[in-house]
Amino acid sequence: MTSHPVSYLDDVVHQRVRLGILTIAHEARRVEFGYLRTSLEVTAGNLSQHLGVLEAAGLITIEKGYAGRRARTWISLTKQGRAALAEEFRQLKRLISQLDDADGPQG
Amino acid sequence: MTSHPVSYLDDVVHQRVRLGILTIAHEARRVEFGYLRTSLEVTAGNLSQHLGVLEAAGLITIEKGYAGRRARTWISLTKQGRAALAEEFRQLKRLISQLDDADGPQG
Repeated sequence: MTSHPVSYLDDVVHQRVRLGILTIAHEARRVEFGYLRTSLEVTAGNLSQHLGVLEAAGLITIEKGYAGRRARTWISLTKQGRAALAEEFRQLKRLISQLDDADGPQG
Repeated sequence: MTSHPVSYLDDVVHQRVRLGILTIAHEARRVEFGYLRTSLEVTAGNLSQHLGVLEAAGLITIEKGYAGRRARTWISLTKQGRAALAEEFRQLKRLISQLDDADGPQG
């Protein structure tokens, strides 16, 4: 039996908030902590936790700095993060097309 | 600011193993526990836990019975489960098209 598409999804990337972080970071060169928190509607603590998981997996880098006098935290995708996100979307597309086929033309 | 597509994803449905359960159950009228376990490459304990979450949310029904003399557990999607899965896929497609737009034609 061939494995189901979800078997190829990586929990590190697939988890809802982390998928959001990676997607937003992918769209910009780098993204600010506060922007992520607002966009994803999560608490700072929850966001920090998910950023920690992604950093530990080598998928993002976290950079501390200043915008004027205000402390800022910037998040960027690594090359590995970009590849992991691409793989997630490849498997999601596979899953979607499998379901669409099962549904027939009314999709 | 408009919320990010992942804000519309429901963790109950989006979680990797549960997404697999719902997708497979959607493809058949009902699906057997052992088949799910093999397809999704999870332990019986892990699968039971995820089925419990889905049942508590009203997305599946779990039915015990026999195939010959062997005890069997069958899983079916409820109407609500079908709607929740459709909504998950609607949001995933939105997320994918947003990313494809950001990537440009080489997608």
